[in-house]
Amino acid sequence: MQYHYEGYISGDPRVSPAKGTGVGRPEEIPDTMDVLIVGTGPAGAITAAQLSQFPSVTTRVIERRGGRLELGRADGVSVRSVESFKAFGFAGRIMDEAYRITETGFWSPDPANPANIVRSSRTPDDPTGLSEFWHITVSQARVADYLFEYAANAPARIRPDYGWELTSVTVEDSGEYPVVAHLRRSSYPSEGREKVVRAKYMLGADGAHSLVRAQIGRKMEGTSSMHAWGVIDALVVTDFPDLRRKAIIQSEAGSILWIPREGGHLTRIYVDLGVLTEENARTIRATSLDTVVAHGNEILHPYSMKLVDVPWHSIYEVGHRVTDKFDNVPAEATGKVIPRVFIAGDACHTHSAKAGQGMNVSMQDGWNLGWKLGWVLDGRSPASLLDTYSAERQPIAQDLIDFDRKWSDIMAKKPEELTDPNEREAFYVGTWEFPSGMATKYPPALLVGTLDHQDLATGFPIGKRFKSAAVMRVCDSNPLQLGHLHLADGRWRIYVFADPAAAGGPSPTTDFATWWTTSPDSPLAAMPAGLDADDWFDLLVIYQTPLEEIEVPDLPGAFRPVMGPFKVEDWEKAFTIDPADDIFEARGISRDGAIVVVRPDEYVAGIWPLTAHAELGAFFKPILSVN
Amino acid sequence: MQYHYEGYISGDPRVSPAKGTGVGRPEEIPDTMDVLIVGTGPAGAITAAQLSQFPSVTTRVIERRGGRLELGRADGVSVRSVESFKAFGFAGRIMDEAYRITETGFWSPDPANPANIVRSSRTPDDPTGLSEFWHITVSQARVADYLFEYAANAPARIRPDYGWELTSVTVEDSGEYPVVAHLRRSSYPSEGREKVVRAKYMLGADGAHSLVRAQIGRKMEGTSSMHAWGVIDALVVTDFPDLRRKAIIQSEAGSILWIPREGGHLTRIYVDLGVLTEENARTIRATSLDTVVAHGNEILHPYSMKLVDVPWHSIYEVGHRVTDKFDNVPAEATGKVIPRVFIAGDACHTHSAKAGQGMNVSMQDGWNLGWKLGWVLDGRSPASLLDTYSAERQPIAQDLIDFDRKWSDIMAKKPEELTDPNEREAFYVGTWEFPSGMATKYPPALLVGTLDHQDLATGFPIGKRFKSAAVMRVCDSNPLQLGHLHLADGRWRIYVFADPAAAGGPSPTTDFATWWTTSPDSPLAAMPAGLDADDWFDLLVIYQTPLEEIEVPDLPGAFRPVMGPFKVEDWEKAFTIDPADDIFEARGISRDGAIVVVRPDEYVAGIWPLTAHAELGAFFKPILSVN
Repeated sequence: MQYHYEGYISGDPRVSPAKGTGVGRPEEIPDTMDVLIVGTGPAGAITAAQLSQFPSVTTRVIERRGGRLELGRADGVSVRSVESFKAFGFAGRIMDEAYRITETGFWSPDPANPANIVRSSRTPDDPTGLSEFWHITVSQARVADYLFEYAANAPARIRPDYGWELTSVTVEDSGEYPVVAHLRRSSYPSEGREKVVRAKYMLGADGAHSLVRAQIGRKMEGTSSMHAWGVIDALVVTDFPDLRRKAIIQSEAGSILWIPREGGHLTRIYVDLGVLTEENARTIRATSLDTVVAHGNEILHPYSMKLVDVPWHSIYEVGHRVTDKFDNVPAEATGKVIPRVFIAGDACHTHSAKAGQGMNVSMQDGWNLGWKLGWVLDGRSPASLLDTYSAERQPIAQDLIDFDRKWSDIMAKKPEELTDPNEREAFYVGTWEFPSGMATKYPPALLVGTLDHQDLATGFPIGKRFKSAAVMRVCDSNPLQLGHLHLADGRWRIYVFADPAAAGGPSPTTDFATWWTTSPDSPLAAMPAGLDADDWFDLLVIYQTPLEEIEVPDLPGAFRPVMGPFKVEDWEKAFTIDPADDIFEARGISRDGAIVVVRPDEYVAGIWPLTAHAELGAFFKPILSVN
Repeated sequence: MQYHYEGYISGDPRVSPAKGTGVGRPEEIPDTMDVLIVGTGPAGAITAAQLSQFPSVTTRVIERRGGRLELGRADGVSVRSVESFKAFGFAGRIMDEAYRITETGFWSPDPANPANIVRSSRTPDDPTGLSEFWHITVSQARVADYLFEYAANAPARIRPDYGWELTSVTVEDSGEYPVVAHLRRSSYPSEGREKVVRAKYMLGADGAHSLVRAQIGRKMEGTSSMHAWGVIDALVVTDFPDLRRKAIIQSEAGSILWIPREGGHLTRIYVDLGVLTEENARTIRATSLDTVVAHGNEILHPYSMKLVDVPWHSIYEVGHRVTDKFDNVPAEATGKVIPRVFIAGDACHTHSAKAGQGMNVSMQDGWNLGWKLGWVLDGRSPASLLDTYSAERQPIAQDLIDFDRKWSDIMAKKPEELTDPNEREAFYVGTWEFPSGMATKYPPALLVGTLDHQDLATGFPIGKRFKSAAVMRVCDSNPLQLGHLHLADGRWRIYVFADPAAAGGPSPTTDFATWWTTSPDSPLAAMPAGLDADDWFDLLVIYQTPLEEIEVPDLPGAFRPVMGPFKVEDWEKAFTIDPADDIFEARGISRDGAIVVVRPDEYVAGIWPLTAHAELGAFFKPILSVN
């Protein structure tokens, strides 16, 4: 965490000085704005949090509810999400208060007495070590709390506008603010009051019944069949031994998905109520809590549960559905017309709760869009960047639906229908990368380079998220995780993995540093005057030479850039190998060095040799606006 | 973190429901109270934070300043302090924002050219792995912020009363509130207004010039010689390679203690100004910032520094002094008269800043006193507990003064006076346990048992702080650090290291569990009716059998006690060995098992065999009030 460099901060350093639109931000929604976000769920919240780092951009977030979410909804948080929370500064705090999933217990009918369930196996979570973060469960309300705390403390000081609902949206063909939104006060103190606002862009993060989706003419496509679940948050007294362990229970009486929750006592229980048909839908939707619990007790036999407190319960029905495009521009017009309205999260994809994916995929949607809006609206990038949002995220949603359908099919099988008694466990473990959130791999396009130089750093697959590894910081001999230094500040990271020459001496690394700061072809040259060198691009160097042989003042200026009003040098840009865990070894990095470029949302954009100055310049050229 | 068991908590679980005196706590200082703390420095703040967990106790904290500390003062935080912060819930957050010390650079005159300094060595911090926490630097203002945040969020809802100063205190011989304190409004809005309040107990945490100390007739004893330092917090532009590394610099021109600070840019610089004499004192105290910096630059030669922002600077003078007793009862009356007024922190001990000890020893003072006041005032323990405060802490302060004197003597030596060129480094590394805060070892007395059974758990030295180790929680297969589960909730921890028999079956461990819950000699029997079994004592069991062979419902009730209004079971009390790091091996615990008792302030109170029911009962008998 870097602070004090703009002047001494006496209080909490997580509260940044307000800047730009964050200075005197009005309480009342203005008539025009850059971005209007509809909805404060995970997708809307993370988009707002990302945009809060762009104080030149006016962002408002409306929410129909009169205040924050209090109860219920999603609770599964993948390791990719927690990794993302690290960038937003709250991974440690949310892990502290959450339940950590380390294992899943699979329960099946006892072969000797099929009326009873027995634990058939335990499978570890993250068996292959995809991340150093945890797979957790915690109420989505807390995720939104943290994201909005971040947004409120960031330079743009974004806070949600509760008690406003969208009633319609239209997009005009021209004008600076072509998105026209009709809003209505949905709660006290002035319910019913209407207001028309105009925006440059809109995000519909307004859930499965999205009005924004309907208004831009997008439709959910997929199976029409709906599956119903009784879902309960409860304090449970039970003799079931996996009270505090995630469990997938299949008995002759039906199935339960059992999710321990934060705080050591709460349990989220999903009791399968079957497929909805025209005949049974009305009855199933009216199932009482007592009936769900009684059915749950049949499934748990010979164990039983008593629910001593039920803060929330619902009947939850869902199909497997996805929209074909995540913005308002018809496929045939893409590239010709700037998209103005986007949708994210449940507004684009709905599926079962089984794999705990909803909140997680939604947040990756929102982060993907958020930084792109920031770069375009801050004038750093052309609007063509925005075409990549739907292009990148829609296929991920399609993969999610396909995965969820397979998983649901297996879960729905009766014990005697399984081709292999361990079919469920085998699928669960074998496909782990997907629900962990790590399977996303964007193909080469505007924001992802070619795979030509993948061999220079095999442990950083191009298009996938940057997997952290250990390094030592030179200036203070601190052992650190390189990936944990990637903050959600909207900046690209340029990791310069150095050749073996002495740090600071003549070498391809030093040549690169010179090119970076002085060449008219360097991405730095696209920056307007008056900015600090690292305002858009965080350039970091990782040497191979021992720490004792490097002194920061000897390094090229590119690796100790001057920052802030007092023009102090940033000494925290230079690293070397942690002898306990060599990053060159761990990530398959060439000893001749490599440039690894990582996008603001932590995805690897490309890899180049240290000498590929022109190629790197060419990669960034279409991403950067010509000033 | 355990929550939801008293009812669903939708917001931040770190905010406990208010209880007792925390419900409707008045803004205005009341006329009578249980504890009056004078001063909001580290000692006062941690005492308040501990007492905030005792909602039956009315605690007020007055501070002469009109608000929180903004700048300057102490900044060195030992690993023992950070470990303590873990118990108060903010170790992660403060480590995130602090500077981490991993090495010290020692600088001396270049033998080839003594006008220049050269780095003579680098020594690692904590070379022996005393703790899994970090040695950090951060403004003491932030430490107080976190401690008071904790106090405000805890059941007793304690907040400081800023803008009040103590003008006098007297102790009457009898009465329920024998401490009579005269207060005066020291700041806006009603400066000068006076108020007389009465308390059962008072803590003077009012600094080196403590009025409380003077009023109870205690005197600082020790050397009368004072040493002066120019001390500066600054943003520095420099070619000195250890800008971001702790450095001890001794040149022909003098010496500097160089402390990197939080935020990546700030530096705390101590420039030695020499011993104060009658002749030079006035001149030295008037040294200007420019003069201090110019002297610093002479010392740094051939390097130089330019201070581009100086948020705080001061001339700081100090001797090595300690009071002979930390309460108001004369030595000869101890044990006959209840102490009513205590002093802690700088009010008891002053010394140089060189070893970064001030804040740290002060907080251990405050924590030591805080829980004892809580137990006495809540009616759990007799007032004799309070005699142990001075008895335990005064010798620690004496050790601190002795250590600091030795360290100062070595630091004051000119290069040519060193008996060995590495004398400074050797002393620094060789005595590391002391400044880390881990050397404290309370001797057997009321709150520390005999050393008879130390051999049953050699890795938990009796009287020293409980050193954490890895375990696996049975209910959820979570790998955890056992010591990190020790919260600053005022409870004793009873660690039952089990014998090798199957968990839950007949065994000395199960016998102990039965004795604990049912015997009239068990400490539990001292608790009033209506409390949960673990309200005063947190009983935890660590089995040796593999996790897969233990099911929580099979365990004795003592290890899954019922808690809260909904009578749910606590399943988080049972642990077993983490195969990756066997705690029995790591801490030298007998395979026949052992009981390890740890005080609320994390010091090991005693070790007994599993079968020593009577001895354990006898240990607790004088600590517990007879109901």
